[in-house]
This record gives sequence, C-alpha cells and structure tokens, in this order.
Amino acid sequence: MPRIKGVLETPVYVDDMAKAKAFYADILGLEMMVESQRICAYDVAPGQVLIAFLRGVCDQDSLVNGDVVPGHRMDGIGHFAFRIESEDLQAWRLYLQEHEIALDSEVCWPGGGQSLYFRDPFGNVVELGTAGVWPNDRS
Amino acid sequence: MPRIKGVLETPVYVDDMAKAKAFYADILGLEMMVESQRICAYDVAPGQVLIAFLRGVCDQDSLVNGDVVPGHRMDGIGHFAFRIESEDLQAWRLYLQEHEIALDSEVCWPGGGQSLYFRDPFGNVVELGTAGVWPNDRS
Repeated sequence: MPRIKGVLETPVYVDDMAKAKAFYADILGLEMMVESQRICAYDVAPGQVLIAFLRGVCDQDSLVNGDVVPGHRMDGIGHFAFRIESEDLQAWRLYLQEHEIALDSEVCWPGGGQSLYFRDPFGNVVELGTAGVWPNDRS
Repeated sequence: MPRIKGVLETPVYVDDMAKAKAFYADILGLEMMVESQRICAYDVAPGQVLIAFLRGVCDQDSLVNGDVVPGHRMDGIGHFAFRIESEDLQAWRLYLQEHEIALDSEVCWPGGGQSLYFRDPFGNVVELGTAGVWPNDRS
C-alpha cells in the first residue's frame, strides 16, 4: 500500500484574522506564507503548515481553477502543539510573560519531555513541547 | 526570541476510538504509538504526531504526575492534511477505492501540487497532498 509521509497541514479555527496574525506571526514568530480572505498559512517548518481558518468563511466549499476544496468548520476549544528545543524552555517562559501570555500549566512527561500550555486569543490550547514528549521524538 | 521548530501534534476529534483506529491505523496505515481511554496517538513521521481525541472524555482537564493537562473539545467538521509522494497519487486513488472510501474531490494547485480529499468516519475532511501544494514544500 502507499504510505503517508508526514503531516502537511494543521488547522486552527479563528474568529478574527488580524488578531490571529498578531498572535501567531507577531508574538509566536511564525512566518506568514499565504494570506487570503479565507485563510492564513504559516510556514512552521519545511513541509509543515499551520493554517488559520476563518470561521463563517471556510464553512463553504471553494473553487481553485474549477476544482472543489471542501468546506469545514469546527467550534469549541481546539488544541495542537509546536515543537521547541529543551534549552529554550526558560527563554519561552520569560518571552511569554513579557508578552502578557499567562501559562495555563506546565507538564513534565514520563518520557522526559516538557510542555508549556497557554491560550491563543480564541481560547485554543496551544502547547510548546520539547523532545521526549513523544516516543517518536527523542532527539 | 526563542523559535518554534515544527508542528509536534495535530488533532482529530473522534466519537468512537475503535472506528478511528479502523480508519487511521488499518486503512491509512498509521502506526499507533500511545493508546489510552482519552487519546490515540499515531506516529506519522519522526516528531509528527496525529492525536485522535475522544469527544466527551478529553473535554476535562487531566493530570500527569500531578501536572494539569488542559482539556479541550471541538465539534463540527475538522480538516488536516497528510503529505504523500506525487508518484503515489494513482496508487492512493486505487487503494482508497478498494477500501470503499469515496473521494470528495481532487485539486490541482497553482504551485503544481495535487490534493485528494475524502472523509474519515466522523465526517472530517482528510487531505492527501503532494509537494507543491505549499511554497515551503517543493522537494
């Protein structure tokens, strides 16, 4: 059978694109790669894209050169995790504090990894995790 | 400022873990890495994890060695994309057809990439995308 090679797109549903950019680009430092009235796509790493989908706009199917891109929409409190380096943990704590982003919590995982949890402007639970959070990421 | 290095965790919200496993592990071929009553974590690639979160269970905060993992929950139709190789596109079409998974659509992107769209058992829009779908993934 053919194989899946990686995760290409990870979604975050947002209610205000300007607020999303102020958080994901200006504070978290992600590079905005593609911007439209429907989405903002952030270049997180080669072949890894965070897409901010604007609720109420991405619900409907859209067309690209006549091809149908299916609509979708999620409501509620979402969650995803970014990878950070262990040696940057304290720098991240200080940096988030400087930008008045309060931590929900910190977790030390059995495998040795550590995670910081905080909220984006829409209440989504954003995690920064080091190596050792997951068995397939120990380097 | 400290930097984000990648996307570590991508979520999919599911209503039945057995049905989720039958789809993501048995059909799509992802290796299940960690399983609990709350989540199933799939090893998609080194440092890239797809997490199936069970609705109604992951809503509440949970504890790991006394540390708080914040709860979250999304309802609706979600979306994310896996990376596949361009040369596997036709094999994927045939493989999905053999497993009675109907395509919603196919899209040819301006950058040269191609995507296949179909549904998981919960209605989420799953995408398989090749190089060229995004500018940071042309290899």
